Order: sequence, then C-alpha cells, then structure tokens
Amino acid sequence: MTPFIAELIGTMLLILLGDGVVANVLLNDTKGNNSGWMVITTAWGLAVFVGVTVAGPYSGAHLNPAVTIGLAIAGKFAWANVLPYIAAQLIGAGMGAFLVWVMYRDHFNRDNDPGAMLAIFCTGPAIRNYLSNITSEIIGAFVLVFTVFYITGAEITPTKTPVGLGSVGAVPVAFLVWVIGLSLGGTTGYAINPARDLAPRIIHALVPIKGKGGSDWSYSWVPVVGPVIGAAIAAFIYLHFQ
Amino acid sequence: MTPFIAELIGTMLLILLGDGVVANVLLNDTKGNNSGWMVITTAWGLAVFVGVTVAGPYSGAHLNPAVTIGLAIAGKFAWANVLPYIAAQLIGAGMGAFLVWVMYRDHFNRDNDPGAMLAIFCTGPAIRNYLSNITSEIIGAFVLVFTVFYITGAEITPTKTPVGLGSVGAVPVAFLVWVIGLSLGGTTGYAINPARDLAPRIIHALVPIKGKGGSDWSYSWVPVVGPVIGAAIAAFIYLHFQ
Amino acid sequence: MTPFIAELIGTMLLILLGDGVVANVLLNDTKGNNSGWMVITTAWGLAVFVGVTVAGPYSGAHLNPAVTIGLAIAGKFAWANVLPYIAAQLIGAGMGAFLVWVMYRDHFNRDNDPGAMLAIFCTGPAIRNYLSNITSEIIGAFVLVFTVFYITGAEITPTKTPVGLGSVGAVPVAFLVWVIGLSLGGTTGYAINPARDLAPRIIHALVPIKGKGGSDWSYSWVPVVGPVIGAAIAAFIYLHFQ
Amino acid sequence: MTPFIAELIGTMLLILLGDGVVANVLLNDTKGNNSGWMVITTAWGLAVFVGVTVAGPYSGAHLNPAVTIGLAIAGKFAWANVLPYIAAQLIGAGMGAFLVWVMYRDHFNRDNDPGAMLAIFCTGPAIRNYLSNITSEIIGAFVLVFTVFYITGAEITPTKTPVGLGSVGAVPVAFLVWVIGLSLGGTTGYAINPARDLAPRIIHALVPIKGKGGSDWSYSWVPVVGPVIGAAIAAFIYLHFQ
Repeated sequence: MTPFIAELIGTMLLILLGDGVVANVLLNDTKGNNSGWMVITTAWGLAVFVGVTVAGPYSGAHLNPAVTIGLAIAGKFAWANVLPYIAAQLIGAGMGAFLVWVMYRDHFNRDNDPGAMLAIFCTGPAIRNYLSNITSEIIGAFVLVFTVFYITGAEITPTKTPVGLGSVGAVPVAFLVWVIGLSLGGTTGYAINPARDLAPRIIHALVPIKGKGGSDWSYSWVPVVGPVIGAAIAAFIYLHFQ
Repeated sequence: MTPFIAELIGTMLLILLGDGVVANVLLNDTKGNNSGWMVITTAWGLAVFVGVTVAGPYSGAHLNPAVTIGLAIAGKFAWANVLPYIAAQLIGAGMGAFLVWVMYRDHFNRDNDPGAMLAIFCTGPAIRNYLSNITSEIIGAFVLVFTVFYITGAEITPTKTPVGLGSVGAVPVAFLVWVIGLSLGGTTGYAINPARDLAPRIIHALVPIKGKGGSDWSYSWVPVVGPVIGAAIAAFIYLHFQ
Repeated sequence: MTPFIAELIGTMLLILLGDGVVANVLLNDTKGNNSGWMVITTAWGLAVFVGVTVAGPYSGAHLNPAVTIGLAIAGKFAWANVLPYIAAQLIGAGMGAFLVWVMYRDHFNRDNDPGAMLAIFCTGPAIRNYLSNITSEIIGAFVLVFTVFYITGAEITPTKTPVGLGSVGAVPVAFLVWVIGLSLGGTTGYAINPARDLAPRIIHALVPIKGKGGSDWSYSWVPVVGPVIGAAIAAFIYLHFQ
Repeated sequence: MTPFIAELIGTMLLILLGDGVVANVLLNDTKGNNSGWMVITTAWGLAVFVGVTVAGPYSGAHLNPAVTIGLAIAGKFAWANVLPYIAAQLIGAGMGAFLVWVMYRDHFNRDNDPGAMLAIFCTGPAIRNYLSNITSEIIGAFVLVFTVFYITGAEITPTKTPVGLGSVGAVPVAFLVWVIGLSLGGTTGYAINPARDLAPRIIHALVPIKGKGGSDWSYSWVPVVGPVIGAAIAAFIYLHFQ
C-alpha cells in the first residue's frame, strides 16, 4: 500500500466508525439510540485505533492534517509530502461520511431534526462564540499532537511500533483520543482534525437528505484553523524541550 | 486441541458470552436489566477476546465463517479446511446459545416479549429493508475482515501472536469488534458472522420457551449472505493493495 | 512476600475494590449512586487486575479457591498448598470487606435497604431457584477457570508473565472477569469465587450496621459449591484436550 | 526535558483532562452534560495515562506529591528532590485547572450552582465527617501507592518501562486509577493526590466566576494530609514485605 492509499483508507475507516457512532446515537429507531457520551467517545477512540492499525505501517497513520502539519513543523516529516497526505485524508474522510449516510439512510429518512443530521457529519459548538470555540479546538489539538509526539518519539513515518507489539502499539493513541473526547469534547465536540470536520461537512451539503437544513459554513473554519494552531503550538513546545 | 475442537469451543464461548449479555440486558429481573448499548457492545468485544485467547494457538481463532472464507479467498487458508471450520463454528455457536437459554431460563419464563426473546439469540433489523440491511452487514463485515488482515498480517492459522504478548495479542481484535458494534451496529445489530446468527436462530426454534414467537426465517439469509460478501470484498481489496 | 501473604493482600485488594464499587453504586448519597451495571462490572474486572498485579509474581495470584482447586485437579498446583492458599484468600477477602464497611460507614448509616446492604458484601440470586442458581455459578466459574488455563498455559505458580510485559500481562484476566460479569452476571451476580462470597458474608454478619437484616445463610452454599464444580469441569476438559 | 518540566507538564495534562471531564459532566449545556460516574472515572484514569506517557521517561511521572513522598520513604527517591517535584506538580496542576476554566468559561457563565463549580476544581465529601473523609483518602491513596510499587518495582525515576512496551507500559497505572475512582471514589471523590486538589482549589479562589461561592478551605487539608498518610503506610508495608 502506498502512503497515499494508506492515509485514504485509514481516514475512511476513522470517519466511517466515528461518524457512524454519532448516527447510531442521534438518529431515531437505531439500536444505540440515545446511548450517551460514553458510547460516542469510546467509539471515536477505537475508530482511531482501527485507522492506525491499518495505515500505520504504510503511512505512519497521521489521519489528520493537524498531525501532518505538526510533524512537518517539528522537522519530522517532509513538507513536500504534506499536501498529498492532506488530500488523501480529505478524500478518505469524505468517503467514510458517505458510507455512514448509505448505511443509516433509512434512519435519516425517519428523522426530522436538522441539527442532529448535521452533527453526524461534523462538529458544532455547544455555545457559539468563535473565540471560545477556537480556543477549545486549539487546546484539544494541542493535547493530541503534543502527546502523540511522546507516544511515538515523533518518528511516525511510517509508524515503527515497538518490537513485538503489533497493533497493540496503537492502543495508546486510542486511549488519548478517548480521553480528549471525554474531557475536552464538551464545548465544541472535539474536531481536533480538519479533515474529520471539513470533508464530511461537504458530504452533508452534497447528499440528498429530506429536511437536512444548512451545513453551517459560518462555523466551518473553526475546526480547520483551530487544530492547525494547536498542532503548531505542540510542535514548538516539543522542539523547545526536546 | 485440534483446530476443529478449538473453533468449536472458541465459538461456543463467544456466543455464550455474546448472547449472554443480550439476555442480561433484555430479560426481566436480571441484574443488568436495561443497562444499555455500552454494556452490550463491550461484552461482545470481550467475548471475542475470550474466544481468541482459547482457540488462537490451535486454530487461528476464526470463530466466523466470513473470516474463514475471506482468508481462503486471500489465499491464506486452504479451501479444503473451510467446511470443517464452518461446521465447528456452527456447532459451537449453537452450544453457546443453548447454554444461555439454560442459564437464563427462569428469566425467559418471566418474560413476555417475543421480540426480546428472539433478539437474545440472533440479530434483526431496526428498520426492515433487505437492501439496506444487507448493505449494513456487508459494510460491518468488510471493516471486520479487512482490519483483521492488517492486525494479523493475514497469517492466522494458527495465530502467531507477537513474541512475548501471549493473550494480550488478542486485545486488538476485541477493540475492533467493540467499535464495530458501537458505530455500525445501530441498523441491524451487527451479525457480521453467519455462525453467530444462524446457529442460535436454530436453537431459538428448537428450545421450548413459553410465548417465544417465530424465529424470523425470512430475515435469516441477510446475516449469512451479507458478511460473506463483505469478507470477499475485504479479501479482494487486501490482495489488490498487498 | 510469601505466597500466603501475597494471596492475602491480593484478595484483600480484590474485595476492597470489588465490594467497594457495589457500595458506591447501591448506597445513598455516594458520588457513584445508581451508576449502573457497567460501573460494577468494569470495577470488578479491574479489581482483579490490581490483585493480580500485586500478588502475581509471589503466589501466582489465584485469589480464588476455585482457581486453586482447579489448578490442583489439573496437576499444576501441589495439593499440600491448597488449604494454605484458601485460608489466605478467605482472610484477605474478609479484610477487604471490612475496609469497605469502614470506608462507607456514614453511607451505611443513611441507608435503610437491608437487601442493598447485603449485596455489598456478597451475592444473591435475582430469582431464587437453587438448581438454576448453582448452574449459573458453575457456568460462570467454568468460563473463568477454563480461560485462565489458556491465558497462562496453566503455569501460574507464581505467574510467569510474558517477558517484558510486566503488569500489562494481567490485562487478559481483567478483561475475562469483566465480560463474565457483563454477560453471565445477570442471574446470581457472579460470585465465581467462594472466598469472594463467603468471607464478606461472615463480615456482614459480624459488623454492626443499623437495620442490616440477615446474611442469607440458606443461599451461602451456592457460591461456594458452584464455582468449585465449575472449576473441576474446566480442569477435566482442559486435561482431556491438552 | 528536565524532571521539573516533565512533572509540571505531566501534571498540567492530568488536571486539564481530569478537571475537564468534571466540567463537561457538571456544567450546563455541555455535550457530556450529566453523563455520569463512568465518564468521570474513565477520563481520570486515562488522564493519568496521558501524563505518564509524556513525563514518564523524563521524571518517572510521579504527578502526585503522595507518590513522591511514598517513594522517598521507601528509599527509592532522593529526599533532596522531593520539594522540587512537589513544586512542579503544584504549578502544573494549577495551570491545568486554569486551562479548564479558560476552555469552559462560557459554560461557567451559564451555571448557577456554586457546588458544581467548586467540584470541577477540587474534591469535597459526600457526607462531611473529617474522620471518615480522611480515612477514605488514606485508603484510596494506600491502594494507589502500594500498587504502583508493584507495577514499577518501585523503580520509577525515570520510568523504565518494560523493554519494547513504549507508552503501553502506562496502561496499568491508568487501570489502577480507573478502578480506585469507580470503587473508592464514592465518599470523597478520591483526591488521592494533594497537588490535584490544592492547586486547583487555589485557582478556584483566584479566577473570576460569577456566583462561584467559597472554596471550602475548611476541608482543604483532608485531601492533602490523607493521601500522604496513605502513601506512608504503603511505603512501610512495602518495605516490610520486600
């Protein structure tokens, strides 16, 4: 598998499983309807586990433009590869969101809450305040990228998992994303990943869902810009204390 | 232990623990009554962990005809062994479901919801639509089998766990099944395994439960055919990108 | 640490954390009041993790007379050591239950449900039927002991954890106990351990709690006899297929 | 990274994620509002995981004055380094609590429950009884520090994780803190760490929150003194049985 295909498939699996759990919890008549924040955050953590397991040995499993840019700033990833990685992540994220729509289509058709429909695809603020919202995304992405540096020694192209651990070596990043969701997801829903938010938002705008409402483009820049700033801060602090 | 016995016992443990949690959550007067989707999906993930721990070193712990067929298509498992493996999986799954009935019999006797009784044994769609339902099973089984290829390097006959990991090496597949349930289980209840669904459905038809209702045979082909198609797609994509 | 002290301290920690979570969930005015089956079963699984982490290298961390007897039947543990191990387990379990009472005493004093008070110390059947109840305990303990044989290779005196894993090697048995609780705990509350049930029941009878009610001695033999039978069956099947 | 900076950053991450989950669960209009004890305890366990992952190789990741003092009593950590470690832990904990306030500020502004606001920063007793409360903190910290000795072999300056495990080696301490919360957190909210409680309480007193009420200084000595006593008992017992 090429790094491009690995990032694409890994991010597709991440979003299929991540947006999938939100569909399961928010849509009417699903088996996991209204099963709560624990279900959502556990699934997102494990969704990262699956994406890292598949893509890790081939691309390092960034699965997130903020991680890619953070690594480039830290001098651990070639700038020339940044755009291809981000392109793969966006395409994969869009494919994952599309599959969630395909899978849960009958449930979308029974729903009549445009807010819930949008929340399946992308994040939105609990209280709209751009300064506060972008601060939340900066802090969340900082914790993600900074800790990833220490999990991996900032050598993740491709992931060199500790000898003998196989995909068990992907457990720490799953636990990291799990706790970021539990603790820091309360304000904006923790995009902490521009591809995770932007590409599914585009899919939301494109697919036909009865009564779906707008895609909230006025907010869409926050989960793109915030995570990149957070990743940059993480890279600078990492370099400073290295 | 022979591979046949290993598949039989491993699948028996899988279904005893998997169908067991549904009995605990759905039946009246149990200690875990109505404890929710998190309980159900966590237990199914860990049920796979137990089955893989016991059967892994002896049979590779497929525990699922879709995994067996997917590996055969990928050229990693001899076609001659496919039918014996599937037979062992079906017998084991039936034994596990029978033990659940034995264990929870007093609670079955206090119940009067035929839908819940059937749901303990086998899956059913939240919204009946064969095309959507089989699509769900295809996607779920695709994620399962495709990721299993990358967890194991498609060398799982018998499982060669990474050196020194022992049964800790079974954690990734447990996490994988956990997240498939959380995220993709909302539509059809994620059979993703023909033996998991068909053999317990037969047991449902055979055991005497007061007021149990029918076994919904009209749906029974979906969780058999869907997972096999999903596994085949996973094998072809795996081979393509190998 | 001698094996006797290791079994005593390990079982004390197991019951302090295990009975502790039931106190937290069932008693009035606690921070975890009414937090459900997921909380209870997760804590019991992790309580085993803590006990095994501490006692493992010194005694093999049986922490359970059924495990000790099962290993002896399987020829993996000297019969001469069985009684000292069981004595240590009973003393430790009693100490753990006593500490739970000390810690939650103010909450016991605010409670007026004798059933909840007893349930903190020991198990009881959801539906009283001795044949069904002992069947449940046999099946639960069978799954525990049989799987433990395959986790450890039945060489657990003292635990030789896989090289380099340290206490991570205790994760599988924690996951095993977690799923037994989730799936098979619905009928009798999964004692699956004679020391876990009998010693705290004695403490219940001894400590002064206002309005505590009886200790249900008529049921007390079930969680002692059932787990031993289940362990014996596990040992025989293990030996047969070895 | 120097040990001082490692302790500071590690404790900052611990409190950002730990106090963060309480904010998410208790404050109005958050995405995790009222999501329960499982969410809170899981996040605190994983918060320790993140702190240990980052600080472990540089300082041993005590992140807790009780751990530092316990190790010093056990002769495993130089007394001369105790005060610098505690200073770093206090500063880091304060920074983490400050970031939680920054991140959840809009939600604080919508809240009008002074008790919930204080509970985000520091612990408080479910039933106020200083003798019982300090007993709870002693028992909780004893279990923490005693088990940490056996997880690490009491050699944690800096953490020598088992060869090849990387940050997977931080899983056991996360599981330990998880179960302490689930089982022993019901009475006082399990500070088990003087820095975790004292520094955020100071931040609570300093930051401007409308209608925040007092910082309950009369209770503040309990989560400082109790954990140190518990750690000392753990060290003495560890030395005795070594």
